[in-house]
Amino acid sequence: MDEFSIIAKYFKPLAANFSGSLNLSDDAALLSPPEGHELVITKDAISHCIHFIGNESPDLIAGKALRVNLSDLAAMGAQPICYFLALMLPANTTEDWLEKFAEGLKKTGDEFKIALAGGDTTRTNGSLSISITAIGSVPRGTALRRNGAKIDDDIYVSGTLGDSALGLQLLLNPTSHAPLPSSHFINRYLTPQPRISLGIALRDIATACMDISDGLVQDLEHTCTASSVGATIHSPLLPLPLGEGGVRAIETALTGGDDYELLFTAPPAKKTIIEQLAKTLQLPLTCIGKITAGNNVQILDENGKTIELDKKGFSHF
Amino acid sequence: MDEFSIIAKYFKPLAANFSGSLNLSDDAALLSPPEGHELVITKDAISHCIHFIGNESPDLIAGKALRVNLSDLAAMGAQPICYFLALMLPANTTEDWLEKFAEGLKKTGDEFKIALAGGDTTRTNGSLSISITAIGSVPRGTALRRNGAKIDDDIYVSGTLGDSALGLQLLLNPTSHAPLPSSHFINRYLTPQPRISLGIALRDIATACMDISDGLVQDLEHTCTASSVGATIHSPLLPLPLGEGGVRAIETALTGGDDYELLFTAPPAKKTIIEQLAKTLQLPLTCIGKITAGNNVQILDENGKTIELDKKGFSHF
Repeated sequence: MDEFSIIAKYFKPLAANFSGSLNLSDDAALLSPPEGHELVITKDAISHCIHFIGNESPDLIAGKALRVNLSDLAAMGAQPICYFLALMLPANTTEDWLEKFAEGLKKTGDEFKIALAGGDTTRTNGSLSISITAIGSVPRGTALRRNGAKIDDDIYVSGTLGDSALGLQLLLNPTSHAPLPSSHFINRYLTPQPRISLGIALRDIATACMDISDGLVQDLEHTCTASSVGATIHSPLLPLPLGEGGVRAIETALTGGDDYELLFTAPPAKKTIIEQLAKTLQLPLTCIGKITAGNNVQILDENGKTIELDKKGFSHF
Repeated sequence: MDEFSIIAKYFKPLAANFSGSLNLSDDAALLSPPEGHELVITKDAISHCIHFIGNESPDLIAGKALRVNLSDLAAMGAQPICYFLALMLPANTTEDWLEKFAEGLKKTGDEFKIALAGGDTTRTNGSLSISITAIGSVPRGTALRRNGAKIDDDIYVSGTLGDSALGLQLLLNPTSHAPLPSSHFINRYLTPQPRISLGIALRDIATACMDISDGLVQDLEHTCTASSVGATIHSPLLPLPLGEGGVRAIETALTGGDDYELLFTAPPAKKTIIEQLAKTLQLPLTCIGKITAGNNVQILDENGKTIELDKKGFSHF
């Protein structure tokens, strides 16, 4: 199949309900934000053997590619609108693969109400790579940023941390120990949940927000740098996967990547409204520490002692 | 260097003058079209050994990646605003390579007044691949489309056709014949000229427009399909590279890709204004045929006989 047949058969149906896609028949798409809104635009690349193992079902690869972009929109408080897909296909790509890939995009797109608006399909003599540009909107001036955290703000995370990193371990080594059925953790790795509803609700609540893609500590450091503040995290407060515990689970929660939960800060006065929001969304929102003066991210254990992290994981003092 | 050091050193400077980039420090960028305008958004992928040979200087690879996206904006009549870059780098990428790549982006971005607004840098265990999403704007309702060509419209192309395909031949086989210094053709392949000023000027003139990336005939067929019309091209009218002639040059002009000239249609009444525009822009705008009823693209030779094209090139009848 040539590029145009692939687009006509697999991708035009994904763009059919979005008028700005111009039915994928022009050189570009047209878009205006809703009245009084501004656009939020993110672009993530995912490539074979880096972001996925390679033997996943194509619909899961497609879903994850779209979900990691949706997570960026969630982190800014945006309502998704549309996305663009650049797909670089190895020569041995089959129609069956394409069909399943398009199915995964459709299912995820339908779930999060985001339509295909354009893109590019080319051959590569390398391995599969996928880049998605996702666009959403926020009422002007309400986008969540990383630079608004204030001293004494509470630090929250959504969901549980470390599930995805454990899922990857289970995929690579199916005999690894897991406190819940492997499928729970593998699903968390393959099918992260972009927290769109949470992001939208946090527009009026959070002082800073980002998604956790590179591990809690590293991402929290980015927020602190952007906000010119420090942070203290209490490791016993970390929301670990159900039934999991111990030093290794804490390490994974602090440094494991691919969680795609939201990390946000809010003044203590917002505590009740955040508790209510957690109930409404049926999603744990856990206060794990406080924003401090300075510029260090400090992790304290159950005895109030500092946990020192290094690249390999962490060591206790 | 890790992802964040690369972004800080090489890419933040490219985003410094565009406030919507948020200094590349957030999960996404923010953008509003100018008052009364809508956004034009395109995304192209370019990958090693498909869109570039591999031994080109990194600044030329960067420049071409941006230029092919700018050409899509030109085809819609858009004024460039900003772009997003997804860069998948092989493990052996050097700092020298990155520095030159960023230089190429800066030079091209400065020339076309388009700033970096966001993106993603990742490793790949495959070959280099680059995806760019470029965004421009047009006054609402004025975007050039492919679907507006009308029967009896004149068909125009900008510049000359086939230069780039000949440039690629010369790169692959430096002893090939060329009617001008090789550097002319190689430059045309490596550094296509997005016709931004022409696209903007055509908003009020052209009935349909697209850029020629896959070869004149194939791209004209796309315009005809979108507009539900046919077309007749007179091969003696084709603007060939200076000094070039003969059957092979015509074949290359008809089917060679990567020209990134604009192909547009306009009513005969616009002839004088288009001639004036060519003078103003110092860019040839050549009428090569007419839009017809039906749905066929017909190529006539100097005797009015049909030139039959096949995938390999063309054959005379």
